[in-house]
Amino acid sequence: MFEFGEDKPKEECGVFGIYAPDQEVARLTYYGLYALQHRGQESAGIAVSNGLSINVHKGMGLVSEVFSDSIVEGLKGKMAIGHVRYSTTGSSLLANAQPLVVHYQKGMMALAHNGNLTNASDLREELGKNGAVFQTTVDSEVIINLITRYRRESLEDALVKTMMDLRGAYALVILAEDKLFGIRDPLGVRPLCIGKLGSWYCLASESCALDTIGAEFVRDVEPGEIVVIDKEGLHSRRGLNKTKRACCAFEYIYFARPDSTMDQLNIAESRRQMGIELAHECPIEADLVIAVPDSGTASALGYATALGIPFGEGLIKNRYVGRTFIQPTQAMREVAVRLKLNANASVLKDKRVVMIDDSIVRGTTSSKLVEMVKKAGAKEVHFLISSPPVAYPCFYGIDTAEREKLIANQLDVDGIRQYVGADSLHYISEEGLLRALGTEAVCLACFNGAYPIPVSSLNRGKSNFESHNSCG
Amino acid sequence: MFEFGEDKPKEECGVFGIYAPDQEVARLTYYGLYALQHRGQESAGIAVSNGLSINVHKGMGLVSEVFSDSIVEGLKGKMAIGHVRYSTTGSSLLANAQPLVVHYQKGMMALAHNGNLTNASDLREELGKNGAVFQTTVDSEVIINLITRYRRESLEDALVKTMMDLRGAYALVILAEDKLFGIRDPLGVRPLCIGKLGSWYCLASESCALDTIGAEFVRDVEPGEIVVIDKEGLHSRRGLNKTKRACCAFEYIYFARPDSTMDQLNIAESRRQMGIELAHECPIEADLVIAVPDSGTASALGYATALGIPFGEGLIKNRYVGRTFIQPTQAMREVAVRLKLNANASVLKDKRVVMIDDSIVRGTTSSKLVEMVKKAGAKEVHFLISSPPVAYPCFYGIDTAEREKLIANQLDVDGIRQYVGADSLHYISEEGLLRALGTEAVCLACFNGAYPIPVSSLNRGKSNFESHNSCG
Amino acid sequence: MFEFGEDKPKEECGVFGIYAPDQEVARLTYYGLYALQHRGQESAGIAVSNGLSINVHKGMGLVSEVFSDSIVEGLKGKMAIGHVRYSTTGSSLLANAQPLVVHYQKGMMALAHNGNLTNASDLREELGKNGAVFQTTVDSEVIINLITRYRRESLEDALVKTMMDLRGAYALVILAEDKLFGIRDPLGVRPLCIGKLGSWYCLASESCALDTIGAEFVRDVEPGEIVVIDKEGLHSRRGLNKTKRACCAFEYIYFARPDSTMDQLNIAESRRQMGIELAHECPIEADLVIAVPDSGTASALGYATALGIPFGEGLIKNRYVGRTFIQPTQAMREVAVRLKLNANASVLKDKRVVMIDDSIVRGTTSSKLVEMVKKAGAKEVHFLISSPPVAYPCFYGIDTAEREKLIANQLDVDGIRQYVGADSLHYISEEGLLRALGTEAVCLACFNGAYPIPVSSLNRGKSNFESHNSCG
Amino acid sequence: MFEFGEDKPKEECGVFGIYAPDQEVARLTYYGLYALQHRGQESAGIAVSNGLSINVHKGMGLVSEVFSDSIVEGLKGKMAIGHVRYSTTGSSLLANAQPLVVHYQKGMMALAHNGNLTNASDLREELGKNGAVFQTTVDSEVIINLITRYRRESLEDALVKTMMDLRGAYALVILAEDKLFGIRDPLGVRPLCIGKLGSWYCLASESCALDTIGAEFVRDVEPGEIVVIDKEGLHSRRGLNKTKRACCAFEYIYFARPDSTMDQLNIAESRRQMGIELAHECPIEADLVIAVPDSGTASALGYATALGIPFGEGLIKNRYVGRTFIQPTQAMREVAVRLKLNANASVLKDKRVVMIDDSIVRGTTSSKLVEMVKKAGAKEVHFLISSPPVAYPCFYGIDTAEREKLIANQLDVDGIRQYVGADSLHYISEEGLLRALGTEAVCLACFNGAYPIPVSSLNRGKSNFESHNSCG
Repeated sequence: MFEFGEDKPKEECGVFGIYAPDQEVARLTYYGLYALQHRGQESAGIAVSNGLSINVHKGMGLVSEVFSDSIVEGLKGKMAIGHVRYSTTGSSLLANAQPLVVHYQKGMMALAHNGNLTNASDLREELGKNGAVFQTTVDSEVIINLITRYRRESLEDALVKTMMDLRGAYALVILAEDKLFGIRDPLGVRPLCIGKLGSWYCLASESCALDTIGAEFVRDVEPGEIVVIDKEGLHSRRGLNKTKRACCAFEYIYFARPDSTMDQLNIAESRRQMGIELAHECPIEADLVIAVPDSGTASALGYATALGIPFGEGLIKNRYVGRTFIQPTQAMREVAVRLKLNANASVLKDKRVVMIDDSIVRGTTSSKLVEMVKKAGAKEVHFLISSPPVAYPCFYGIDTAEREKLIANQLDVDGIRQYVGADSLHYISEEGLLRALGTEAVCLACFNGAYPIPVSSLNRGKSNFESHNSCG
Repeated sequence: MFEFGEDKPKEECGVFGIYAPDQEVARLTYYGLYALQHRGQESAGIAVSNGLSINVHKGMGLVSEVFSDSIVEGLKGKMAIGHVRYSTTGSSLLANAQPLVVHYQKGMMALAHNGNLTNASDLREELGKNGAVFQTTVDSEVIINLITRYRRESLEDALVKTMMDLRGAYALVILAEDKLFGIRDPLGVRPLCIGKLGSWYCLASESCALDTIGAEFVRDVEPGEIVVIDKEGLHSRRGLNKTKRACCAFEYIYFARPDSTMDQLNIAESRRQMGIELAHECPIEADLVIAVPDSGTASALGYATALGIPFGEGLIKNRYVGRTFIQPTQAMREVAVRLKLNANASVLKDKRVVMIDDSIVRGTTSSKLVEMVKKAGAKEVHFLISSPPVAYPCFYGIDTAEREKLIANQLDVDGIRQYVGADSLHYISEEGLLRALGTEAVCLACFNGAYPIPVSSLNRGKSNFESHNSCG
Repeated sequence: MFEFGEDKPKEECGVFGIYAPDQEVARLTYYGLYALQHRGQESAGIAVSNGLSINVHKGMGLVSEVFSDSIVEGLKGKMAIGHVRYSTTGSSLLANAQPLVVHYQKGMMALAHNGNLTNASDLREELGKNGAVFQTTVDSEVIINLITRYRRESLEDALVKTMMDLRGAYALVILAEDKLFGIRDPLGVRPLCIGKLGSWYCLASESCALDTIGAEFVRDVEPGEIVVIDKEGLHSRRGLNKTKRACCAFEYIYFARPDSTMDQLNIAESRRQMGIELAHECPIEADLVIAVPDSGTASALGYATALGIPFGEGLIKNRYVGRTFIQPTQAMREVAVRLKLNANASVLKDKRVVMIDDSIVRGTTSSKLVEMVKKAGAKEVHFLISSPPVAYPCFYGIDTAEREKLIANQLDVDGIRQYVGADSLHYISEEGLLRALGTEAVCLACFNGAYPIPVSSLNRGKSNFESHNSCG
Repeated sequence: MFEFGEDKPKEECGVFGIYAPDQEVARLTYYGLYALQHRGQESAGIAVSNGLSINVHKGMGLVSEVFSDSIVEGLKGKMAIGHVRYSTTGSSLLANAQPLVVHYQKGMMALAHNGNLTNASDLREELGKNGAVFQTTVDSEVIINLITRYRRESLEDALVKTMMDLRGAYALVILAEDKLFGIRDPLGVRPLCIGKLGSWYCLASESCALDTIGAEFVRDVEPGEIVVIDKEGLHSRRGLNKTKRACCAFEYIYFARPDSTMDQLNIAESRRQMGIELAHECPIEADLVIAVPDSGTASALGYATALGIPFGEGLIKNRYVGRTFIQPTQAMREVAVRLKLNANASVLKDKRVVMIDDSIVRGTTSSKLVEMVKKAGAKEVHFLISSPPVAYPCFYGIDTAEREKLIANQLDVDGIRQYVGADSLHYISEEGLLRALGTEAVCLACFNGAYPIPVSSLNRGKSNFESHNSCG
């Protein structure tokens, strides 16, 4: 079996939380996770608390596969958290599915994590010295053991102390002691926002999940902030001082849903601006602008409009591509790409084409797309990318691929152009990307290696695609 | 469980066939069906012949669910046919999955059908009088019994005689006697085209399946034509005189994949032309054009370009919507639509919006979309439809809904406008549609009731959504 | 995967039928099939008629796997038939599951068959000449086509004429025209009996199914008889003259459940008598009698009692042996037998042992059992078999193995003794078996080759284990 | 769905362990668990160690359902442990499946437990005070946390200290530090024995598992003993002084397989002796002795032989009874018992019958069996039980039922006789049972309430059927 999307960044997660005693919280969490499904398709889970005990259901697969009506019906409570995890190869274990639920001295606790700790190995070693036993390889288990280490403190104080121990990227939702907590790391690498449903509050990785359940967007959780939600409503506690905000640029470029608004920037609008910046940086005399669907569409529309070139659906996506299919034999290897995307010759024939994609990771798919568009009759193919070259691994929760496999780590731009077979190739500049986003408070480490959070040498050896820990 | 897309026409099927002794024909058929998956998700099947005997594997679900590598591996032969069937409620039975394979006096035969016979009941009765026994309710079984009734003739002659018996819409692929046959009804209501892979030939409902396996498009099968493919290559036999061509307009409007070209018209291009026609018929002073994705996108782009109004992604589709999900309770009923589509307020806010969709069948989803766009801040919503009002049931293989449930059968255009809550509503005219298609040789019966093939009174009582026979 | 029981005869089936308008007929049929599960584990099916139309549900696997409460709940009607089919390798196809349900000129009909026609190929050819098309390879389809060929007659007359066409062994249950029919071939090779539940009648392959649903045993269906059950009650119609009764001896020896009574003989009692006959034919001076459980137990108890030798559980069966398990590697090949049966050394040590089994087909398991019992400390192992040597294939519905693989076809008794490693080996004589059964009206063809029904040369080439047709 | 066997004690488990670097340890463990399947059908798991890291696969269901060839193939290592768990209602959670595998300061450890701790709640509380977090409700997690608390000691010393903390019944197999450990509680309530395969050692709950993999029985693990198995072979370490041995009497009466030998007593032989003791205590003038199969058979044979009364198969078990089936409606409630067991009237008619069963827990099934035997024509039914009345709950790993539901807790023997409808009823005496076993070193707490291990008041409130902890 062959997995699609292998040439795109992955290993993200999505989290959701809600406190709403008079609502069906598990059902609302189910719909919230359904809206966040693009952030992870490996496993899904929902934990529900009635204030005393916590029930959980987790499974491998899509939200719609893991949960049935009767399972959701059986998860009764007044507050809930949920989690979706990205599909990775090999290490997809049910034991690593979240939320993680534990019994500890003060009762029960459930936790779900999006991000990646950069000092997880150090923390595991230290906790182990003090007698901790671990049953999984996910960061959530480390975080929970830290929290319970401070069990003599109030839970809020314990969370503050835990944040002082943690290094890395994390957006956390926690169920405990009749309260729902939302926490975001001091740089705000991973997103988390607050919604209001009637008089109750909820939390989600992206605002599209709030829209889906009919909740009103309130605001983003601040970097370093602890949000406490209970029957009194919502109050905020500073966990760590926010230093410099560094939201993940790839959320805007590729991950997040276009209809989400994240740290005040709408995703679709950001992508359109990237297209406009590309138009400024690289105005090409062409007959047609096409996108690599779906993530390149907004940028392509921005580019086309900015330069007054017609936009057309030159590449068509098969809407029924599943997660796996029977692998083509060597003789049929081109079929693999064409099962997902097909070039529409009627649109492309004899045209000078600008093709816009969000990123190039390994370059294998890109070269096949350029070839396909040329075979369909395009006279020229100019390939524009709405992100700078990805040359460094991410340690904060995204699996870009191992460094050696990143084409931008092996070749310069002209070398990549030759490899993919395009007539010209242009990446947006870092400045252009920042202009499109209208802020400099973003993490660009995968483009320039300037890691805003220290990565311990122990952990540096293995970026998340190796440790399989990236989702908490 | 709630099924998506319930407010769109359905009950189509897709067929594929290939003759290629030195190729893995089952694997190629698998990929061909994968490309045709949008034409039917209820069941899938592949039959393979080695010239003497025929093996078949069929199952409920998507092509990728029904077939594993080892199943495809086990289907050895030199020619194959395949079928995908649309998901309908209730009558989804494995017994009705195709291809249908039989033993008869001269050996084995396999047949797959897209379309709907209008005299099936009459034919069943007549065959029954002569001793035929039926194990399914699909038209394919009727057709096979007709063919074998003429077993004293050559198979080609038997096929010609069978076509004389049949009334209705049919695109057939048949495996028998070391030959692959492709047949299209005399009006050409259902599509079927011919491809060439190396020195071998194949058949498919849509050209996108040819692209996917790397075959070259040769031509469409002509209405009334019998195409015979064997080791000598391809030859054509006239089955019935073609009278007046009447390809199904809904293939262009909604069903077919944008990258397919059908009877010389590219689907994406046709849809763009519908948008341009709408711009001529109904130019609206607006700030933004949006589409109901995905089928409305091409028309919306045509409309936007024609009038110079910006196109934006105002409605965002959840790319992970599965075929079923847990039904929202009454209190959450708006969630059902928002799980599939969400309005992007950042794009819509304070805009006068033109929203373009391909059709309105019952109107229930449309009214929710208009409301959603308005709630997201649109000042005005003008709703444009790239098909005329659907007021008559289809008897030729499409399930539009029962006549009483067709909103255009109950209300006039202004009534519908009020029902869906739009500031204005405009359907493309029949003339506009024909102009966009550049031909008058299409079936418009579901718009104007002018049925090009007689429907027997026995069958008229029940259109295909009742008989569940529409796919062969 | 390795299948257990590969060294025993197989390929039997079981049928059940009930007419009881005020009862839940599908549920009663489910329980009836549950009691007949030992007759077939490959597939199960139930067809229910309301007098006008027939619904059917069939699937691969055990009755408890194929049917859920809601499926049974959905099968409403006033009469029903059911079928279980034995697990064979390779050709286990859902298409071959029964009952077979058809539409024909006069309405619908459902049929289930236990047995094997010996002229099926001839009949298929003849029917094919008259235009019949076949979708399966089971005899039931041939029988139904014969019945409908006589559709101008009354159904009862059509059944009589059909019986004249049929050669071979058959116990049939048929649903049609508001009536339930039960038919048994003129020799009565396959069993079928009649029960009464309140004022309604039912039919079953074995009386244990009547006990299970709480029905009272009425009588066996006579060889050549047609039993008609409807709202008037039960009446009998002679189909064919009964010639000489020839019930299958293996039903008594191995197949049937000990608590069934068949043609007036209780199975457990018959087996006990076989043990007593063995004691007369071959009284051995031994310390212990053991059985190969479970089918050898009754004979072993009879033998032990007759000679006053203690009976002990020397071989213990694993009660949780499933149908498949992970095949041992070559190095572990002895594990395969020990997973199913283990010798209890505490019972066997230093004993002179008589071990009784019902039959030896290929001898492979027998040799391992003798070795196991010896390893466990038995001083001597005398192996007694409650059937004569199986030296001829069965053409009437039992898969004994291909003739070449029958050890009794390759070796004489002493050769077999050496092969299995026993100190002595004794098979019951044909006379002894007949004495034990108290009748000569049984089919002994697999022992002596005296086939009571002619087998056409066309069919003789392939006994049922090759044609996969044996279950109807 | 209705679960069979609801009227028998349950909630046992089985464990297996092997150290054999040059063997396929996972495959051998699979076969070992297959032989122990009768001890638990809820879940199964195998953990394999290569000396550094441990891999585990666990799942719900039978061993043959949880493991495929490729899964076993993937579990490479030089030592392994395995576990099967009984099916209970409701709390059957994958999270509670064993072996439990953890990472701790010194590496990895895996543990599987058969038995029940009586101070688990106290230990959890104490460990929680020291910061432990728990992810399951099984005792294994408590035991592992205790072991790692002593991580500054050598592992053997830590195991000794852990045993000092534990109260209750436990047979443990542990993988850690390149060693395999076997531990048995100081009373030896739960069984554990040692086998030798070539030059390597293995451990199993019952000796039948050793036979199955071809290992030679060495000896039982002594109460209070720690057995250490590694590349040097096997050595023993005293964990706790053995006080008074108190093996569970129900292992002999019902649980263990007849071919197992446990603490020097063969199970089949023990049961035969119980029948002989019953014959001494209660010699009845009868025509026939029958057993409630399968567990009553050995006792019935002992009884019949002792008194010279014929033994017959009066009750026949359906060999294909699955774990669940469609529940009969109220009107058909007798069907439930008859699906499992049927009376053979030919054997029973006009007989004075002695029926022997191993135990009566709630009495509901017994009353139906007596009725069934009488309906089949028995003139008298004398009911003999090879265990004393079960009047007290078990806290050491067996689920006998809640105390209130134990019929012997509600009624005296004559009351029970009336309830079940027998002509006479006799339970074996405690003395008779001890005579049959030939030892007084057994736990009889469920008969006489003399609990050999203190049960804390906290735990006494809930016997294991409530805490769902009984399997470790």
